[in-house]
Amino acid sequence: MSDFLVIPRSAHDSLVSKAYQSRGFSADEAAEGAKLAAEAARHGIRTHHALKALHLDHLFGSAAGGCTPGAEIEVLPSRFPASERWNANKKLGQSVAYRAINRAIELADQFGIAQIAVDNAFHYLWGGGYVMEAAERGYYAYTNCTSALAEVVPFGGKCPTLGTNPHSWAFPTTEAIGFPICIDWATSTVAMGRVQQLLREGKPLPPGAAVDENGQETTDPAKVKALLPFGAHKGYGLSLIDEILAAYTGGSLPTLRSRWGAGPADEKHTPCFFFQCIRPEALDCGDFAQGRSQTQNVRAVIEDILGHGNEGCMLPGEPEARFARKSEQHGGLLFTQAEIDAFAQIAREAGHPFDAGRLRQAEV
Amino acid sequence: MSDFLVIPRSAHDSLVSKAYQSRGFSADEAAEGAKLAAEAARHGIRTHHALKALHLDHLFGSAAGGCTPGAEIEVLPSRFPASERWNANKKLGQSVAYRAINRAIELADQFGIAQIAVDNAFHYLWGGGYVMEAAERGYYAYTNCTSALAEVVPFGGKCPTLGTNPHSWAFPTTEAIGFPICIDWATSTVAMGRVQQLLREGKPLPPGAAVDENGQETTDPAKVKALLPFGAHKGYGLSLIDEILAAYTGGSLPTLRSRWGAGPADEKHTPCFFFQCIRPEALDCGDFAQGRSQTQNVRAVIEDILGHGNEGCMLPGEPEARFARKSEQHGGLLFTQAEIDAFAQIAREAGHPFDAGRLRQAEV
Repeated sequence: MSDFLVIPRSAHDSLVSKAYQSRGFSADEAAEGAKLAAEAARHGIRTHHALKALHLDHLFGSAAGGCTPGAEIEVLPSRFPASERWNANKKLGQSVAYRAINRAIELADQFGIAQIAVDNAFHYLWGGGYVMEAAERGYYAYTNCTSALAEVVPFGGKCPTLGTNPHSWAFPTTEAIGFPICIDWATSTVAMGRVQQLLREGKPLPPGAAVDENGQETTDPAKVKALLPFGAHKGYGLSLIDEILAAYTGGSLPTLRSRWGAGPADEKHTPCFFFQCIRPEALDCGDFAQGRSQTQNVRAVIEDILGHGNEGCMLPGEPEARFARKSEQHGGLLFTQAEIDAFAQIAREAGHPFDAGRLRQAEV
Repeated sequence: MSDFLVIPRSAHDSLVSKAYQSRGFSADEAAEGAKLAAEAARHGIRTHHALKALHLDHLFGSAAGGCTPGAEIEVLPSRFPASERWNANKKLGQSVAYRAINRAIELADQFGIAQIAVDNAFHYLWGGGYVMEAAERGYYAYTNCTSALAEVVPFGGKCPTLGTNPHSWAFPTTEAIGFPICIDWATSTVAMGRVQQLLREGKPLPPGAAVDENGQETTDPAKVKALLPFGAHKGYGLSLIDEILAAYTGGSLPTLRSRWGAGPADEKHTPCFFFQCIRPEALDCGDFAQGRSQTQNVRAVIEDILGHGNEGCMLPGEPEARFARKSEQHGGLLFTQAEIDAFAQIAREAGHPFDAGRLRQAEV
C-alpha cells in the first residue's frame, strides 16, 4: 500500500475541534464533530473524515444557512414510549446523530427496539460511524438520512430528484468474529465524488452508474449529469425509503433540499435522520442448534457462509476493522501527504499549532 | 395483454382451503393460506399464488417435515414490552406471518415501533402481502426472512451459502397516492425459477445474475450452478442482514436449511422471520412546509420525485395496485388457462368441485 503520515488522535481532535469552534460551534459540538471525523479516519473512510466534514460545513452548513452553531435539540413530546421525535433545529449533524443513537440505545434497553425520527437536521456525514458505535456497545443499529442534494434519477427517469440516500446497519458481532459487521452505502451506484475522480484520471464509469443530459446512460464521466440508483429498481426502492420516511417526519421536496433560497419562502430545505436500535436479547428465542449460545450461533452461521470455498470473501465492516487495526499499530490516524497539507491549511485558518514536518511516517 | 379466466374469490378461497385441509391443516390455517394466495393473485404476483404455495408445501412443508399442520405458536416471555419472541413450531408460514404482523400493529399502537422475531418457522411465501396489509391499515411495515435454500453465492465467493433472502417494506400511502408503496424483492438478481424459465425459452440471463460450477459468472441458464446477489457487495450485505438477524433469533447454518436429514441430529433446518411495524404519528415532527398535513407532505414529496420529466417512472407497488384494480373490474382473481388446469388438478386431488368450463374469460 502507500505511505501515510500519522497524526496522533489527540492532536487531530484538538485541531478539528478548534476548526469547528472557530466557525462558532460550541465545545460540545466541536468535540462531537472531531470524534466522528477521527472514527472515520481510524476506519479508513477517506471520503468522510475531517476534511470532508469541514468542506461540507462550508458548502451547505454554517456558512450557507444549513447548520446553526450552538443550536439546541428540541425533544418533542411523544405518546409512544419506544419512539422519540426530535427537532434538531439545524444543529451540527454529528452532535445530533451521536445523541440520537445514544438515546435509541437507552430506549432499546427498556423496550427491545426503539426509534428516533429527526427533523430539521444537517448532514451527519458517515452513518456507519453511529451504528458501528452502537454495535460495539452490543446493539443491532440502523440509520438512514436524506442526502444534501438530489443527484439521483429514479429508475426509468431522466431528472435527479432523489438523494444518494444512504443506509447503514451494524450488528454487535465483535465477540463472535472480532468486529462489528457494518453494511453501509449510498443507494447510488457511485458517488458524485467518484465521477469527478474518474474524470481526473481519464477512466470510464462502471455501467449503470450515471446518465447524460438526455437521461441516457453514460460511462463517460465528462458527460455525467446525474447518478443512477444501484441495482436498477431495487436500489431505487431503497432510495425511496429514505425520502418517504423523511416525508413522514418533516422533510420537504427533495429537489429543494440544501438549496437555500430556492422555492417559496415557506418551504423547507433540511434533511431528516432516522435511527433505530435493537437489543439482541429481544430477538433471542433461546433454541440454538447444538446447544450454542446466541454469540456462538452467530459465529457458526458466519463461518458457514464464508466456508465451502468462500474463504476469500470479505464481510461488510471487515476492511474498516483491518484499517482500524493498522491505525492502532501506528498509534494514531493515518493520512496521505495531500491530506496533511490540507490539515495544515485548516490549522493556519483556525490559528492552531500544527507542525506537519514532525509527523511520523507509516508504511501501511 | 393476455387472456385470463376469472375465478371468483370465494370459489378460489374454498378450493385452496380445501386443499390445505386435505393435507391436515386446520380450518384457520387453511383460511390464512387461502387469504395470502388470493392476495398474491389479486395483485398479479404470479410467482407466489396458491399453485406455488401448495407446491412449496409439498417440497419443503407438510410432506417433507418442514411444516407441521395444526402446530401452535408459542409466545415466549419477553422483558422488552415492544418486542415479542415467537416459537412458530413449524406452523404454516402464512398463519404465523398474518398473526405476527397483527401483533406488531397492536404493539406499534402502544410503543410507536414494535418487532416480532420468529424462530422455527416455515416459508411465508410473499412478504409483500403482509406488509401491504399493514400499510393498508395505516402502518409502515417491514419484514424479512431466511429463504428455504442456500442458492446465492456471497460477493467474491464460489459456493451458494446464502438464501435469496427477501426484504419487504410498505408505506401507508393509500390516502396520499391511492395505493401503498411496497418495496419487495429477493436479494438475488433473479430467482432460480427465472433461470429455469429462461432455459426453457432459450434466452440468456442478465449479467451479474449467476455463476457456473467453477464460480465464474455466466449468462447461460444451462450452466447455472448458483445465483449472485444483486448490486454486487450491496445486495450481498442485504442478504447477510436476513441471515444474521436469523442467527440472533435461532436460525442455524444456511447450508443446512430445509435439508431435513442433513448434518448432525441436533442441528436445525428451519427459517426465521422478522416483522416490524411503525406508527406514522410516531415519526411526525409536526413541521411540514407550506402548512401541509403529514399525508399532504408525503404526496408532495412523491410528486416532486416523479415530476421534472420523471412522469413515466413507476413507484414500487404501483404494478400490484394496477393489477388489483383489474381484478376488481373483472370481479375475481385472474389466472391463465395453464394455471386453471393446475387448479383443476388440485381440486380433483382434494375432492372439491371445480368446473373450469364455467369460468368467465377476461381480456386484461
